[in-house]
Amino acid sequence: MRTRIEAALTLAVRRAEDGAPEGLAGAVRYAVFPGGARIRPHLCLAVAEACGDEGSPLADAVACSLELLHCASLVHDDLPCFDDADIRRGRPSVHRAYGEPLAVLVGDALIVMAFEAVARAGASAPDRVVPLITTLARAVGTPHGLVAGQAWESEPSVPLEQYHRAKTGSLFMAATMCGAIVAGEDPEPWRVVGERLGEAYQVADDLLDALAMSSEAGKPLGQDAALARPNAVLALGVDGAIARLHALVGQAAESVPECRGALGLRQLVLQMAKRLVPEGLKRSAA
Amino acid sequence: MRTRIEAALTLAVRRAEDGAPEGLAGAVRYAVFPGGARIRPHLCLAVAEACGDEGSPLADAVACSLELLHCASLVHDDLPCFDDADIRRGRPSVHRAYGEPLAVLVGDALIVMAFEAVARAGASAPDRVVPLITTLARAVGTPHGLVAGQAWESEPSVPLEQYHRAKTGSLFMAATMCGAIVAGEDPEPWRVVGERLGEAYQVADDLLDALAMSSEAGKPLGQDAALARPNAVLALGVDGAIARLHALVGQAAESVPECRGALGLRQLVLQMAKRLVPEGLKRSAA
Repeated sequence: MRTRIEAALTLAVRRAEDGAPEGLAGAVRYAVFPGGARIRPHLCLAVAEACGDEGSPLADAVACSLELLHCASLVHDDLPCFDDADIRRGRPSVHRAYGEPLAVLVGDALIVMAFEAVARAGASAPDRVVPLITTLARAVGTPHGLVAGQAWESEPSVPLEQYHRAKTGSLFMAATMCGAIVAGEDPEPWRVVGERLGEAYQVADDLLDALAMSSEAGKPLGQDAALARPNAVLALGVDGAIARLHALVGQAAESVPECRGALGLRQLVLQMAKRLVPEGLKRSAA
Repeated sequence: MRTRIEAALTLAVRRAEDGAPEGLAGAVRYAVFPGGARIRPHLCLAVAEACGDEGSPLADAVACSLELLHCASLVHDDLPCFDDADIRRGRPSVHRAYGEPLAVLVGDALIVMAFEAVARAGASAPDRVVPLITTLARAVGTPHGLVAGQAWESEPSVPLEQYHRAKTGSLFMAATMCGAIVAGEDPEPWRVVGERLGEAYQVADDLLDALAMSSEAGKPLGQDAALARPNAVLALGVDGAIARLHALVGQAAESVPECRGALGLRQLVLQMAKRLVPEGLKRSAA
């Protein structure tokens, strides 16, 4: 699966580079490669496969689209006017490496590339393009997507659940739902699977942040406390947060609808929990 | 036509507001209303109509999408890291009114809303959604769209023609081509019509900028000379630039392909030339 995801991302980035201003082309590539865990595209492909998709180019394109949208949000969130993060994935953030103007444009370009990838791959199945694009758009736009989630940080008071659902959950929901759409299945029963995994991922991120294990996360940590942002560890303690993470992943696995590959997918989801708990905490949680 | 465009924009903005963080919702509305001439959506609807479209909701959605993408580019171009413009359309720019974080997010949100609008309206004609979205994406993304155009400004040397085509021409090309696609016609013959009009519009913008008629443009002018950007007036002089504008509009009118409403559309295009020449220059050009 990793190979399919990287190939789809490589294709999208190459298309964007050819004839583009050199700085922009370099910055787009820098924002996408090398990636992190590519967790959202993996999830999407796993759901598509469980629903019977047999490695379709449309599935690859949608997985690629999810990762491009995720990368776009990282690049813009790191900007000086938001987190002002110097480091991302263990090296300078895009605006530190390429300057602020190109960082703004890279985010814009990645959003456009995401929708373009789906439309291009969908020429042979146009009836699936419409729900795919509306699902992706809802996940990243406003009122309830990633952009809205980030915008809650500009409000005097932040509704915690809505904030997390928009900022993290929305793209996980899109990942599971789009996996189903690609395979021609009803996406609605898949919503809750993505939602629970998104919540689990948020708790994992909170654990990393609160413990400030800078070397592992590859980005500046302890940001939530510094910026007075909501954080599950601050609310539940470390052990409480780990328990919460396991409960959420368990709920996600239970919610997997009956389908050809339900059993395998449930196991895969449960394995995700292990990967989500930060390395330094596994012993204490075991 | 103005009514249809404003109604489609109102619908898209209302959808984006409902349940969104208050600041983001306000800033999105502020970025879209009240608008300027809405020249790109007008052009798109005029082409659609000339090709036989009878006021379809898909045409309205595509027109709306073009304007949302244009607004997104204005909001991001005005940011401190680019033009650092305090004024837009005669009042504070989005980042001056709502702060830089929300201005970045408004641009992102508008791009997403643009693709969402087309996909939502296209459920009844999914085979047209695919070429519409790829055409729009090419016009705003990279390597040759709006975002790439803006990124040329970060390069040590700017290829003038490529820069203008990407920064201004691309969305005009998308306007005429999408108008044809909406009506089920081949978009290719319509490319050159949009291209010439985009070039004419660029010359008109250069005239405004070079003459620094601040009150008319509603934004800070003389920016090109200050930022050492290419400008048709600097290259051709005022009379030369006006002659060039008329020649380009004439070529656009000539290029209108044979279609049901070709005659009316050619006249409309020629009328655009009059609107494009800045008021203060019309006497000298007559």
